[in-house]
Amino acid sequence: MAKVRSFPAKIWETVSKAGREDPRRVIHSLKVGVALTLVSFLYVLEPLFKDVGQNAMWAVITVVVVLEFTAGATLCKGLNRGFGTLCAGSLAFFIEFVAQRPGRVFRAVFIGASVFLIGAVATYVRFFPKIKKNYDYGVVIFLLTFNLITVSSYRVENVLHIARERLYTIAIGCGVCLLMSLLVCPNWSGEDLHNSMVYKLESLAKSIEECVNEYFTDMETKADEDEPDKDDPIYKGYRAVLDSKSTDETLAMFASWEPRHSRHCYKYPWEQYVKLGAVLRRFGYTAVALHGCLESEIQTPKSVRALFKDPCIRAVQEVSKVLMELASSMKQRRRCSPDVLSDHLHESLQDLNAAIKSQPRLFISPNRPANTVLSSMKTDPFALLEWRTKRDHPNHPKGDATDRKAMLRPTLSKIAITGLEFSEALPFAAFASLLVETAARLELVIEEVEELGRVAGFREYTEDGGVDVVVDKGVAPPPMAPNHVSQAAD
Amino acid sequence: MAKVRSFPAKIWETVSKAGREDPRRVIHSLKVGVALTLVSFLYVLEPLFKDVGQNAMWAVITVVVVLEFTAGATLCKGLNRGFGTLCAGSLAFFIEFVAQRPGRVFRAVFIGASVFLIGAVATYVRFFPKIKKNYDYGVVIFLLTFNLITVSSYRVENVLHIARERLYTIAIGCGVCLLMSLLVCPNWSGEDLHNSMVYKLESLAKSIEECVNEYFTDMETKADEDEPDKDDPIYKGYRAVLDSKSTDETLAMFASWEPRHSRHCYKYPWEQYVKLGAVLRRFGYTAVALHGCLESEIQTPKSVRALFKDPCIRAVQEVSKVLMELASSMKQRRRCSPDVLSDHLHESLQDLNAAIKSQPRLFISPNRPANTVLSSMKTDPFALLEWRTKRDHPNHPKGDATDRKAMLRPTLSKIAITGLEFSEALPFAAFASLLVETAARLELVIEEVEELGRVAGFREYTEDGGVDVVVDKGVAPPPMAPNHVSQAAD
Repeated sequence: MAKVRSFPAKIWETVSKAGREDPRRVIHSLKVGVALTLVSFLYVLEPLFKDVGQNAMWAVITVVVVLEFTAGATLCKGLNRGFGTLCAGSLAFFIEFVAQRPGRVFRAVFIGASVFLIGAVATYVRFFPKIKKNYDYGVVIFLLTFNLITVSSYRVENVLHIARERLYTIAIGCGVCLLMSLLVCPNWSGEDLHNSMVYKLESLAKSIEECVNEYFTDMETKADEDEPDKDDPIYKGYRAVLDSKSTDETLAMFASWEPRHSRHCYKYPWEQYVKLGAVLRRFGYTAVALHGCLESEIQTPKSVRALFKDPCIRAVQEVSKVLMELASSMKQRRRCSPDVLSDHLHESLQDLNAAIKSQPRLFISPNRPANTVLSSMKTDPFALLEWRTKRDHPNHPKGDATDRKAMLRPTLSKIAITGLEFSEALPFAAFASLLVETAARLELVIEEVEELGRVAGFREYTEDGGVDVVVDKGVAPPPMAPNHVSQAAD
Repeated sequence: MAKVRSFPAKIWETVSKAGREDPRRVIHSLKVGVALTLVSFLYVLEPLFKDVGQNAMWAVITVVVVLEFTAGATLCKGLNRGFGTLCAGSLAFFIEFVAQRPGRVFRAVFIGASVFLIGAVATYVRFFPKIKKNYDYGVVIFLLTFNLITVSSYRVENVLHIARERLYTIAIGCGVCLLMSLLVCPNWSGEDLHNSMVYKLESLAKSIEECVNEYFTDMETKADEDEPDKDDPIYKGYRAVLDSKSTDETLAMFASWEPRHSRHCYKYPWEQYVKLGAVLRRFGYTAVALHGCLESEIQTPKSVRALFKDPCIRAVQEVSKVLMELASSMKQRRRCSPDVLSDHLHESLQDLNAAIKSQPRLFISPNRPANTVLSSMKTDPFALLEWRTKRDHPNHPKGDATDRKAMLRPTLSKIAITGLEFSEALPFAAFASLLVETAARLELVIEEVEELGRVAGFREYTEDGGVDVVVDKGVAPPPMAPNHVSQAAD
């Protein structure tokens, strides 16, 4: 009973969620409604009906099938549909011309054979990657129209008439679709692609920063969780990037059909966006591996981690800052500031490197003699500092040997902790190594973003534009695949 | 000129490649040809034409649009088309019933309003994830049919007739499609999904084994390559896994429409396959990170790597063997052998662990005193062995102190190499850590495969079936997305 009562609430939740996720969906739905009503007038209004007649149906069908969420998708389908119909019409007339011989049987056999042949060939052609990618819908429409005309020609005398009518009405339908799609609140695939890249850059930045912070604060291992938690901000950050290949490619494909549409937008360099997407995915894999270090069962002792905390956090903050700057430059369609991208990151990486280099060597002996520990103390900056502070403390009576020995003990024990086993240092080493790897991958990302800025003709970086780097954290996640309807019908 | 001359060769290459990649494509093309010819008979043959008439065209359209590469896809589209038409017909009659009032203007306004409303609502509904996933095509057909009937009803009296004809001919078309799709050389999405998992398991096995082997043999760094080489066997291995999310989900969705079709195949537990796919992707990310270690700029010296070569290679061989056993058990649709999955892998991991533990500790001192080196020699098995072999050599004059000193020198220098800096050990540590991580992820893979075997009712493991584990290395890559045509038309 409770289930039945909560049913309307659930439905409302589904309905409002789709709209909240992307309000353009509501507008698109209204646009489809308007387009359908417009095209119905062809049939309902007397003067229009006289001209178009019964074939107005094809216009209705075209609107239902062709009007897609984004302008690129609509253009792709509309042009494919138009061109497919045209080609099929031409071929059908050629076949018709050849088949003009006496004898119904000959005609029937000839029509059957050509339907079989063209059907098989067109279906096979759809498996070619290039055709599949851009012209799949066109081939389907070609096959459909060809069959309609060829088969009709068996019984109807004036096939030319059918074909012309079909072409006209499809043209009317496509025209209405393009009008609604390009001129009334257009949604551009290119814009979506652009925004999704900005969003991904920001998500990655947040994700790795969160990841490193968690490594140094939260010491509880989470090794028992099989599936990553869906609300984990780290996971949420890189998840958007990992499985984005097909979405990126679909958006890029549709974007390639779109004309320039604003002064910002030069012809979309969509191939460059796809490349950037691939580089971001590779960056994302490193983020996954970094996240894996958090969940590893063997953990490096807290005290050891603490030694590297500051340089690691500084390094990741720099990486994250660079990603944010890239995102913000892309968002504003300007080239990225040259100094943000080099100095601080290099410095912080060198600091991390120095911190690692200043740390232990690998020795062979597991039973180290006591004098090693003593000699080591001289070179460990932390231990030395502590020892000196204590020694130089004004309250400390200098020259008292026993007291000095007692002061040394905590220091020694601290060093003993630091002399950890190789197997314990392993996870931290992996973590640090992946962090360095992240920085290396970041360079590829920077390269691709700069290349994109160059190809897409983003405006040059200016000092005043660069001073107030607006890092808007509230970018809504861009609409993903569900909007880009690729199925169509009848 | 040369380009023009090579053009036919290029075309032939494209044509034959599509067929070689998956010969079922040729068969599918012929099936479409046959189906189209069959359905054309409705129009061409006199007795059939008398019954069906002009509306035979809807059957032709249905065949072009509904007949897809796999049985699941055809069923999904066919049932969606049928059900969509039926719903739209019912609703159209309801509207027609309400609109039966005098006055052309009232009727026109009423029809216009209902077209707008239903158009907008149906388009909005397509954005709901659940509808989008399984019933998108059905909603499109619903909208199409509803518009056709409602708009026609304005001028044609007997709309019931139109609707019934349309339903009949669509039913005939769907019938032909299902016949061709389910009975004549059917391609099952479920089978494809199953084979793609087997292929992925095998690719991952090859990929990580190759990766570790390369780490220990080829010492040249490849850091300057930005893009991974497409023919690199390591990259090829995990590439198939990384971007498989959408393909997996599409195949699983179509598989969910398929009935049981052989004694092997119980109702496909397609959700479990999707889960397995997700776990394999996570495993793949570790493979990417492992591959990243090969391309890292800082490399651990050869001599140090050599120390760990044997346990690492043994461990990865065990991981790879387990993956191969999982693949082979899935291929034969049997549960995996329980002992292959536990003993050797654990042993090899313990060996690796022991090798790592027997190795250096981390000390603080960079200037180690000489006596440490000497004491270390006692515990380093390699150094000790070498020293002993040389000492006990029959030709060696015992007790000669100076000679003994000379013999020690190479051993000492060897140890000196081993006393490498932490920063140099880092990459190897990362490598070893990722290898252990791989083994941890492997357990998740095993779990999911076992769960799959349980859910899918694979036959129990038997001793004789397990002895001759057939590891067929020649599995053809399963057809990926290009086969699964999701666009359709008119």
